[in-house]
Amino acid sequence: MKIIVDAMGGDNAPAEIVKGALAANRDTGVEIVLVGREEAVRKAAADCGAASLPAGVSIVNATEVIEICDDPATAFKHKKDSSITVGLNMLKSGEGDAFVSAGSTGALLAAATLLVKRIRGIRRAAMCPVIPTAGGGAVLIDCGANAACTAEYLLQFAYLGNFYVKQVLGIPNPRVGLLNIGAEPSKGDDLRRETYDLLQRSHEAGRLNFVGNIEAKEAIKGGCDVIVTDGFSGNVMLKTIEGVGSYLGREVKGMFLKSLKTKVAALLMKDGLREFKTKLDPDRVGGTAFLGISRPVIKAHGSSGAAAIANAIGQAVTVAESGIIQEIEAHIEDMKTE
Amino acid sequence: MKIIVDAMGGDNAPAEIVKGALAANRDTGVEIVLVGREEAVRKAAADCGAASLPAGVSIVNATEVIEICDDPATAFKHKKDSSITVGLNMLKSGEGDAFVSAGSTGALLAAATLLVKRIRGIRRAAMCPVIPTAGGGAVLIDCGANAACTAEYLLQFAYLGNFYVKQVLGIPNPRVGLLNIGAEPSKGDDLRRETYDLLQRSHEAGRLNFVGNIEAKEAIKGGCDVIVTDGFSGNVMLKTIEGVGSYLGREVKGMFLKSLKTKVAALLMKDGLREFKTKLDPDRVGGTAFLGISRPVIKAHGSSGAAAIANAIGQAVTVAESGIIQEIEAHIEDMKTE
Repeated sequence: MKIIVDAMGGDNAPAEIVKGALAANRDTGVEIVLVGREEAVRKAAADCGAASLPAGVSIVNATEVIEICDDPATAFKHKKDSSITVGLNMLKSGEGDAFVSAGSTGALLAAATLLVKRIRGIRRAAMCPVIPTAGGGAVLIDCGANAACTAEYLLQFAYLGNFYVKQVLGIPNPRVGLLNIGAEPSKGDDLRRETYDLLQRSHEAGRLNFVGNIEAKEAIKGGCDVIVTDGFSGNVMLKTIEGVGSYLGREVKGMFLKSLKTKVAALLMKDGLREFKTKLDPDRVGGTAFLGISRPVIKAHGSSGAAAIANAIGQAVTVAESGIIQEIEAHIEDMKTE
Repeated sequence: MKIIVDAMGGDNAPAEIVKGALAANRDTGVEIVLVGREEAVRKAAADCGAASLPAGVSIVNATEVIEICDDPATAFKHKKDSSITVGLNMLKSGEGDAFVSAGSTGALLAAATLLVKRIRGIRRAAMCPVIPTAGGGAVLIDCGANAACTAEYLLQFAYLGNFYVKQVLGIPNPRVGLLNIGAEPSKGDDLRRETYDLLQRSHEAGRLNFVGNIEAKEAIKGGCDVIVTDGFSGNVMLKTIEGVGSYLGREVKGMFLKSLKTKVAALLMKDGLREFKTKLDPDRVGGTAFLGISRPVIKAHGSSGAAAIANAIGQAVTVAESGIIQEIEAHIEDMKTE
């Protein structure tokens, strides 16, 4: 298994990216191709004590970097020697099994769609992070790639999420819910009602385990394994989870720092607090796959540190080994509306 | 000040509603009219030790109750003697200064719109709960009344929220943000881009303090005072906050119940924990106003207990005294698009 890593993407590139990739190689034996400015990448590796690269790690030079200020839709074209463009072209031509980047989401999505291409029959690629729920976690699809959606897109997201949960997370018969503002089939806007009908038909045909509309609160309680929605409200849900998590995390911390008495309490709670912090840690999962692209592409959080990158590489290996793309291709006819 | 209270609405009616209304009367001297099945309301009052009603509290008999299974759009017509229909007709004819109900949101909104009517020129009434933020709180408008919106609706929501924060919460020059999936003006779908232009024009005319697009995470960090969005994504945001709050609240509780050591820590943390619990308590605010209706209507949470009802009645008094409706009427021309 060989993972192509964008060494230049994200707030902490290249240092943390290279560190995380070296850790993944050391701990799991996965082969790594680091794509980026060779000198900077070599220096980052040397700073991690790898003045000469370990076996299974190589560098491919790419002299340009796509920046946040570049137009996401066209950056990969204008910067042909950027780490994203070079890396995705390598993925396309089979020089690696998956691509991992912490760079600009928009640029990565546009480049993946236009260079690597979508699976034939898939209308839009979607992002599907695993969000924390009382049930252990659920996939939220889409969560920002597509602000405006049709019912057919949402139907396809349901199948994509279903196969991800089945093939990558290993949960049989995933419960698919349509994010809505009430449980009854009549709830929401036209897009939701139209999508409800399509999902219900897939359910009746035995193709999806559609559990109906689900409110955000019930989803977080663990009411389903796949939360289907448009990229706008999915992004609102994801960012709200992050926002409330970090807000309450700070409140809990403040509560323990208040006085000598509470600081003693913090000592007594050490293990529990560490566990609580882990639950709120966005680095734990690592990244989100771009589902619907014909080869595995994983987007890591822009603020990823080395641990998050190592996790994203692990996730890339799982996705590449899962056979999810073949599974999507085999069921493409089920995902089409007339 | 006289508040009309739907004694039959909500999961805990009439017992908790009557208890909360009696408490509000006792603690603040506000006049209360309880609308509902007289016998049941009298019994609930007697159970609170008010076998004969205190001064300033009266009952108006209404023999029917709108249930969750009734069609929200038409229930108030079919059940002419329901507590919602009777109470709103009283509000309309000036027999009270505001109406408070914990009953069906949809039925209350439909009845308020068709019986009490919207302010002339307002396209849609909206719900505007105060959500917790690191900055102390922000108004989220709309959050469920209107699943499908136009840019003009959203422009009006911005003004409605602006006046609510100014007149009811007493914050001068409220910062108005448009909920979006990125900060740049080009982000989001057509609805967002069109709304951005309208809000920007209002900003340039000195009518609104528009701070631009805001992501959910930044909004929870306290980046604005009014969060403008459609009722679908607003509801997703609100329910996500509730869901994550109750999930993390349970996690914190579990962390303290783990062992003897952590239980000792809980004792040391008693005050801080009580404060933390208060921050997560949905009953604290009480209810959400239906902004855009020509008289004050407050929707309390369906699960409201007595304390939440008392808070919602306090909120109704504040709204009725604030002059917000006159303020909206005076600025209605600013809220129109050609």
